[in-house]
Amino acid sequence: MPENLEAKPVTVPTLLVLDADPLPRLGRLTGRVRVEHADASTLAGRLPAADVLLVWDFASDAVRRAWPGEGPRPRWVHTASAGVDHLLCPELVASDTVVTNARGIFDRPIAEYVAALVLAFAKDLPRTLELQRERAWRHRETRRVAGTRAVVVGSGPIGRAIAGTLGALGVRTALVGRTARSAVHGPEDLDRLMAGADWVIAAAPLTGRTPGMFDTRRFGMMQPSAYFLNVGRGQLVVEEALARALRGRWIAGAALDVFAAEPLTPDSPLWELPGLVVSPHMSGDTVGWRDELGAQFVELYERWAAGLPLVNVVDKQRGYVPGH
Amino acid sequence: MPENLEAKPVTVPTLLVLDADPLPRLGRLTGRVRVEHADASTLAGRLPAADVLLVWDFASDAVRRAWPGEGPRPRWVHTASAGVDHLLCPELVASDTVVTNARGIFDRPIAEYVAALVLAFAKDLPRTLELQRERAWRHRETRRVAGTRAVVVGSGPIGRAIAGTLGALGVRTALVGRTARSAVHGPEDLDRLMAGADWVIAAAPLTGRTPGMFDTRRFGMMQPSAYFLNVGRGQLVVEEALARALRGRWIAGAALDVFAAEPLTPDSPLWELPGLVVSPHMSGDTVGWRDELGAQFVELYERWAAGLPLVNVVDKQRGYVPGH
Repeated sequence: MPENLEAKPVTVPTLLVLDADPLPRLGRLTGRVRVEHADASTLAGRLPAADVLLVWDFASDAVRRAWPGEGPRPRWVHTASAGVDHLLCPELVASDTVVTNARGIFDRPIAEYVAALVLAFAKDLPRTLELQRERAWRHRETRRVAGTRAVVVGSGPIGRAIAGTLGALGVRTALVGRTARSAVHGPEDLDRLMAGADWVIAAAPLTGRTPGMFDTRRFGMMQPSAYFLNVGRGQLVVEEALARALRGRWIAGAALDVFAAEPLTPDSPLWELPGLVVSPHMSGDTVGWRDELGAQFVELYERWAAGLPLVNVVDKQRGYVPGH
Repeated sequence: MPENLEAKPVTVPTLLVLDADPLPRLGRLTGRVRVEHADASTLAGRLPAADVLLVWDFASDAVRRAWPGEGPRPRWVHTASAGVDHLLCPELVASDTVVTNARGIFDRPIAEYVAALVLAFAKDLPRTLELQRERAWRHRETRRVAGTRAVVVGSGPIGRAIAGTLGALGVRTALVGRTARSAVHGPEDLDRLMAGADWVIAAAPLTGRTPGMFDTRRFGMMQPSAYFLNVGRGQLVVEEALARALRGRWIAGAALDVFAAEPLTPDSPLWELPGLVVSPHMSGDTVGWRDELGAQFVELYERWAAGLPLVNVVDKQRGYVPGH
């Protein structure tokens, strides 16, 4: 008996949760893990005792800041997000710790969100709502989306889901990935595809190669009738360059769901740029999403506890989960 | 020679165009028809000399008012619209005159428009635009459209295009028509389908049976989370009943593109109903639509001039073009 009691701390893994509100629902794991909680201020102190770290507060960069400290580190880090840019630091990349992400949860919701914005722009819906406030009956001709051309930058599951949904609406959609392969263009085709596109959609992860890829030169090559949408990461876009493109009517409009600094502060000039739709990083967050994220982690945990190989494993060098 | 000159007025048909701005482009017919123009005030006087009437100003009810007058009547009336409610009067219905419509031109555009509104509601886009004006960063959870249920009332080409487009987005869509047939429900199923629907979409023609079909009883049976959309005719809806349903939050929201009286006047209470999107009868009007309407009439004219049977022939008793 005393032996068992003493052994227990060794056999029950410690799951450290970097919290956000509301807490994850980890029902099936009750009693099988020792759950501890941390916030940005306590994370560094609690990391050494953790076997597993669940990054539930994926808007925080606390992991990237706390990881390089002293002591042992969790063997596995899971983030309840598709992007991993907020946690990868050189020390974590170089370590043996496995990093997994929420691949799969956000694909269809984000694809629907992009379709919503594409259709809203095509049908001039923001202007319709403005005219309604003015009680003005003003007929306009709008655009058909069927037959238009989109380029989606980012060929992971989210980019592919966007291409599938736009394709179902008759939009001819090209995917651009890190390297050319079947049905995916390489970066060398991006300029040409952007120049011919009606819709340019950023859905790439933030990696060493992608910051600032949408800059003045690239906005300058878009058609004046074209729209730019970003559902990837804010840092993909040079925001001042987009502001210039919108103010100068180089392009017809844009929608940003992600920003270099989030939340966007009330004094940001982005709120009032002509033709820009601003949304608060919510494109993938449909009702029930947190439950889905919790259930996904529980499933991964079952594999880990059983000694099975994890899925959704991030290539820490590349900064995303490689796949077809 | 003199005989020929005298005979010419008999062999060149007179095409009377009830005009709207801009005029139809009837290029291929140049020199083959005598084109005359009329507006609401001159139509009655010019009808007797016309072989064919092209109702280009489809927002006008001038035909319905002028038709019952004295003298001969055109043998063929074509309207550059899907609905024919604005021109059918008992005398025209009882006559031998053939009526054709613009069946086919508006199907895909209207389907895209409906998809735009469905997605905009699911993704809370009107609220996003409001919060943007307030410079407020407020994350919300939104809805997935895949797996939701729609009922489309109207089983003609427009209703079927709507069902096809929503189906491509994963929405389970039921069609309701005048009578039950393959893949179409009869009116007896409407109450049950409305009660279970997330989206109720009115795309029916205005006929003897359809005025006021969406009334207090039917809005009362919808789910509080459901939305109502009308892209058919304003008279399908009891507008006061919809106002009550929206003010009382019986339903989550609505979009009206058509109204009992158009244009909507600035003093209409509809402009400011909670959760209502008002648009100015434009759901089918995509760039190039007038050229398509002109080209469609020219094609029909070629058939008529060659003595071939016309297509898009309206069943004047029923008030629409019957089809599969």
